Amino acid sequence: MARLPGGIVTPAVTPLRDGELDREGISELLEFLRSSGAAAVFPASSVGSFHLLSLSEHSRLISEFAARLPSGLSLLPGVHRGNLEEAVELARLARDAGAAAVISVPPFYSELSQGEIADYYSALARSADVPIVIYNIPQMARNRVEPGTAAEVARATGLVAGVKDSSRDLASLQGYLRELPGIPVYEGQDDLLLPAKVLGAHGGVCGTSNFTDLPERVWRSGSPELQSRLSRLMAELSAFEFPSAYYYLFQALVMGRRSPSGYLPRPLRPLGEREAEALLSSVRGIIGDDRGASG
Amino acid sequence: MARLPGGIVTPAVTPLRDGELDREGISELLEFLRSSGAAAVFPASSVGSFHLLSLSEHSRLISEFAARLPSGLSLLPGVHRGNLEEAVELARLARDAGAAAVISVPPFYSELSQGEIADYYSALARSADVPIVIYNIPQMARNRVEPGTAAEVARATGLVAGVKDSSRDLASLQGYLRELPGIPVYEGQDDLLLPAKVLGAHGGVCGTSNFTDLPERVWRSGSPELQSRLSRLMAELSAFEFPSAYYYLFQALVMGRRSPSGYLPRPLRPLGEREAEALLSSVRGIIGDDRGASG
Amino acid sequence: MARLPGGIVTPAVTPLRDGELDREGISELLEFLRSSGAAAVFPASSVGSFHLLSLSEHSRLISEFAARLPSGLSLLPGVHRGNLEEAVELARLARDAGAAAVISVPPFYSELSQGEIADYYSALARSADVPIVIYNIPQMARNRVEPGTAAEVARATGLVAGVKDSSRDLASLQGYLRELPGIPVYEGQDDLLLPAKVLGAHGGVCGTSNFTDLPERVWRSGSPELQSRLSRLMAELSAFEFPSAYYYLFQALVMGRRSPSGYLPRPLRPLGEREAEALLSSVRGIIGDDRGASG
Amino acid sequence: MARLPGGIVTPAVTPLRDGELDREGISELLEFLRSSGAAAVFPASSVGSFHLLSLSEHSRLISEFAARLPSGLSLLPGVHRGNLEEAVELARLARDAGAAAVISVPPFYSELSQGEIADYYSALARSADVPIVIYNIPQMARNRVEPGTAAEVARATGLVAGVKDSSRDLASLQGYLRELPGIPVYEGQDDLLLPAKVLGAHGGVCGTSNFTDLPERVWRSGSPELQSRLSRLMAELSAFEFPSAYYYLFQALVMGRRSPSGYLPRPLRPLGEREAEALLSSVRGIIGDDRGASG
Repeated sequence: MARLPGGIVTPAVTPLRDGELDREGISELLEFLRSSGAAAVFPASSVGSFHLLSLSEHSRLISEFAARLPSGLSLLPGVHRGNLEEAVELARLARDAGAAAVISVPPFYSELSQGEIADYYSALARSADVPIVIYNIPQMARNRVEPGTAAEVARATGLVAGVKDSSRDLASLQGYLRELPGIPVYEGQDDLLLPAKVLGAHGGVCGTSNFTDLPERVWRSGSPELQSRLSRLMAELSAFEFPSAYYYLFQALVMGRRSPSGYLPRPLRPLGEREAEALLSSVRGIIGDDRGASG
Repeated sequence: MARLPGGIVTPAVTPLRDGELDREGISELLEFLRSSGAAAVFPASSVGSFHLLSLSEHSRLISEFAARLPSGLSLLPGVHRGNLEEAVELARLARDAGAAAVISVPPFYSELSQGEIADYYSALARSADVPIVIYNIPQMARNRVEPGTAAEVARATGLVAGVKDSSRDLASLQGYLRELPGIPVYEGQDDLLLPAKVLGAHGGVCGTSNFTDLPERVWRSGSPELQSRLSRLMAELSAFEFPSAYYYLFQALVMGRRSPSGYLPRPLRPLGEREAEALLSSVRGIIGDDRGASG
Repeated sequence: MARLPGGIVTPAVTPLRDGELDREGISELLEFLRSSGAAAVFPASSVGSFHLLSLSEHSRLISEFAARLPSGLSLLPGVHRGNLEEAVELARLARDAGAAAVISVPPFYSELSQGEIADYYSALARSADVPIVIYNIPQMARNRVEPGTAAEVARATGLVAGVKDSSRDLASLQGYLRELPGIPVYEGQDDLLLPAKVLGAHGGVCGTSNFTDLPERVWRSGSPELQSRLSRLMAELSAFEFPSAYYYLFQALVMGRRSPSGYLPRPLRPLGEREAEALLSSVRGIIGDDRGASG
Repeated sequence: MARLPGGIVTPAVTPLRDGELDREGISELLEFLRSSGAAAVFPASSVGSFHLLSLSEHSRLISEFAARLPSGLSLLPGVHRGNLEEAVELARLARDAGAAAVISVPPFYSELSQGEIADYYSALARSADVPIVIYNIPQMARNRVEPGTAAEVARATGLVAGVKDSSRDLASLQGYLRELPGIPVYEGQDDLLLPAKVLGAHGGVCGTSNFTDLPERVWRSGSPELQSRLSRLMAELSAFEFPSAYYYLFQALVMGRRSPSGYLPRPLRPLGEREAEALLSSVRGIIGDDRGASG
C-alpha cells in the first residue's frame, strides 16, 4: 500500500451544467487543481453532495474524474453509501480506475455501535480489496469513528491508508495521530489547517481549494497571516447555504460563468443574483484579485 | 385522494433470513398485523433500516410486501432516498403496486433550507403522481420539516395525504394539526400515542406493533394503564441497540425463532444470546404471556 | 407531609417597578391567581429569572410573596442556588414563612453525576427539614434528574413532595410517574398540559398563568380545543425573547400598564414598543378579549 | 490599562481541607505556580467550581489569593455571578486587592441576546471601574459571546483587557483575534494550546497547570511532542468526573496528600481510592516522575 501524498486534497464539487454532469467542468476543475498544487482530488465528497446522487450518477462521477485525471494528482473517490454492497461496487470501480484509495463515511442516519462501524469498514476494505480512508464527520453522519475503532480496522485489515477528520475538534485529530502512528491523518476544516499541520497532520481536505489556491499556500508557507485570510474566507462562506456557495464560486472563479444554470444537484436552490454578487465580491476581496482561479 | 385510515401503522422490520429477504417472514408479519388490527403497514421504515438497503433491495422489499398484502391493510411504503430520481422510481413502483400513499423522509446528511425541502417533496409527489406522507424525524435526518413547509407542499400539490411526526415534541405535532387542518397526522413514538390521540392525531406509527398488539389496544381503549405499559415497554427497549431489539423480538415472538440467524441488515450486529433472553423475558413480562404475537 | 394540591401552579414573574421589587405588583399577581383558580404560586422560578437575583433579593422575594399570600393558594418558593448553604438558608426561610414545600433545580453550569445530584437534594431537604419538589429542566440546567435518582432521594429522606418535569419529553414524565408512585408529578410546559393530565400528572406549572386563566380552564375542562388555544399561545410566545414577553404581558394584562418601565431584572432588555403592541394584540386574539386578566 | 501578561494562566482549584477554605493550600498552590513559571492565577474559575460557592466564600477566596500573591504572578479573579450587583461587588473587591483584571462568564442558565450580554459586561466594567476579561464557554454557560459583541463592549467601555475562549472551536478564537486586534486572547483548552499559539493567542488558561508545569513547557518550547503529551494527559483526565480529578491531583501532586479529606466543594463526590490511584499512576506516567509538582 503506497503512502498517500501529503498536502491539500480537494473535496470536489460535482460539476453540473443544466442539471447534467459536466465533463468540461470536470476537466477544468482538474486542471485548476493541478496548477494550484493540490495533492489529490476527492470526488463524491460532502461538498459535492454525494448523498444527493443516484448510484449510477455516483458511479459515473468517479469514472469521469478518473478518465481525466492529470498526472501528479492522486484520485481519492468517496464511496459512501448506506448499503455495503453498493459501496463495495463503487470501491471496486474506483480501484480498477486507478484510485490511490477510497474515502468512506460510515453509514449515516441511525446510530451504530463502534463494533458495527468497524465491521462496515473491514468488510468494505476486504471485499473491494482496496485501501480506505476513514472519514469522521459526526456532525453530519451522527456516527463518530473513535480513534480506537479506526486503529482496530487498521490492524485487522492492513488496509487503512488514512483518516480524514472533519469533526472540528482537534482533540479528535490528536487522538487519531496517537492511535494510528504512521498513518496519514488529514484535517477536514480549512480554518484548522495550520493548527493541524503543527500537530502533525499529513494534509488537509479543504473545500475552498475548489476555487482558490489559498489552502495550498497556507500549507506550504505555514504562514499564520495566510491562515488568518483563509479562516476569514470560511467565516464569510458560513453566512451562505452550504454547499451552494462552493458550487457557485467554482462556476464563477474557475469556469468563468457568472450566471450559471443548473449547477446544483436537486433539490439545492441556486444563490439569488444579488447574493451571488455579494459573495463573489467579498471572496475576491479576501483571496486577492491576482490569485485564486487565475493564480 | 382517499383519506388514509386511522389507527396504528406498523413501520415494518425488514424480514431477513441468512441475510436474504425472507418472503415467509413478510407473510407472517402481514398476517400478524392483520390479526392485531393494524390499519396500515410501512415497509422501508427507520425501524426497517431503509438506509442500509441497496436500491434494488429497497425496490424488491416494496414489491414483496405489496404482493402479499392482506385485504383490510393499507400499504404505505417508504421511498426515502437522498437522490430524487431514485425516490421517484420507487414511488411509481409503489403507486403501481397499490400503495395508498408513499412515506418520505427529506434528504438527510446535510442541512437543507425549508424551501429546498418543499421543492423535494413537491417534485416527488408530482413526478410520481402519488399522494405522500411527510415524515418529520429531525433527530435522525437533521432536517426538520416545519409545519408551514408541509402546508405549503399540500397547497401547491394537493398530494399531501398525511404527516408522520417522530420528533418526540408534541408542540411539533400540534403545529401540524394547526397548519394542516383535515390532513391526517400520525404520532411516530409509541410512548406518546395516547397523548397524541387526545390532541387529535389520526393514528400512530408504532415500532412495537411489529411484535405486539399493545399499541392497537392503547389506541382503541384510550386507556392510560395500557399506555403506561406500552411506555414501560419503550423504556425497556431503549436499553438495547436500536433497531436490533425490534428485529429480534419480531423473530422470537412472531416467527417463533429463538435463535435466528442472519436476521439483521449489515453491518448491524445481532444481540448476544444472554442479552436476547433477558430482553425477551422482560418484554414478555410487560406485554403479557397471553397476548402479543400469540394474541 | 401534606399532599400538594393538584391543578395549576404559577411560576411567577418577579414583579418589578423601576428596577425595584414591586409589592403592589406581588399583591395584584396573587389576587389574579386566586381569582383564576391557581392551586399554588412558585416565586423565584425560571420565568421569574431567579438566576439573575442576588441572594438578598431572592430572600426578600420569598418573604414578600409569603406576607401577601391569599388563603387557598399554596406557596412553593424556588430555592435554587448553586451553593448548598445558600439554598438551605432560603429553604428554612420559606419553611418558616409557611411554604408547603420548596422547589429546587440541581446546581447548574457544570455536569454532576446522579449520585452528586441525589446528595444535593438529600442534604437540602434534611438540613432545612422541609419537603422538596425536584425540578427537572435539563435543557437549562444541563443536569437531568433521572427518575431513579428522584426515587432514591424520596426513599432516603421521606421529604420529596413532588416533581416538576420541564424536559418537554413525556417519556421522562412517565418515568417519574412509574418510579415515584403516589408522589405528585407536575408538567412544566403549557403546551403539554392536557397530554400530561391524561397520563396521570397531578398538575401543571404553567408560565402563561401569570396573565391568563387559560391553563386553569384547560386543566378543569380537559378540552382539546382549549389546549389547542393554549398551545397556539405558546407558539406565539416562542417568537419573542424568553422570559421578557411573560414579564410584559403580566404588566399589560394584570397590572394594566401598557408602557411599564424597569419591569425586567438586569440585564434583560424590554420589548420594543411596536414589538410589545404586536405581542399584546396577538395574545388578546388567542386568549379572548372577554377573559384573561379581566376574566 | 496595563497589558495582561502572556503565557499560562492557571484556573485555580479551590483549595479545601475538611470542607473549609485551606489557606495553606492556597499558599502552596501559589508557590507551585510561581516556580512553574505561570503568568497569572485565576481563582473562582470553572475548575474551581465557582458556581458552587456562596457569595461570602467567593469573596473570601479572592481575598485570600490576593493576600498571598507572590510577586511576578498576576491576579485575575473570576467574578461570575448571575446577579449583576453581586458581580460588581466582587469586582470592586478584586480591584482594590490588586487584581490586574477580573474574568467573567456571562449570566448562565437562560439564554440572553447578544445585546443583553453586551449590557451586562459594560455595566460590570463601568460600575466596578475595572478591566475585564470576557470568558466564552457556551457549552457550560449556554450563552456564546460573539466576537462582535466582545468588540462592542471593548469600544464602548475601553475596559476589555482580554478574552478567554474555552469553546473548543478555534474558528471562534480566530474570530476574537480578528475582531479585537491588539487585545490579548487566551485559549481555554489545554489540548489546543500550541495550535492557538500558532494562530496568535496571547496565552492559555490551562487547568492542568494546577499540578504540572507541562503547559508552561509547551508554551515556551512550542514543541509538538510536549503538546502531544499534554493532550494525552487531557484525554486521560476526560475519563474521570470533572473537576474532581483536578482537585485530587492538586492534593496528591502539589500538597503531597494521598488520602485527602474534604477536598471538594459540596455536592461533589471524591474519587474512590482505587480510581484515585489509577489516575495518579497514569498521570505520573504521562508528565514524568522527575517533573510535575516537584519539577
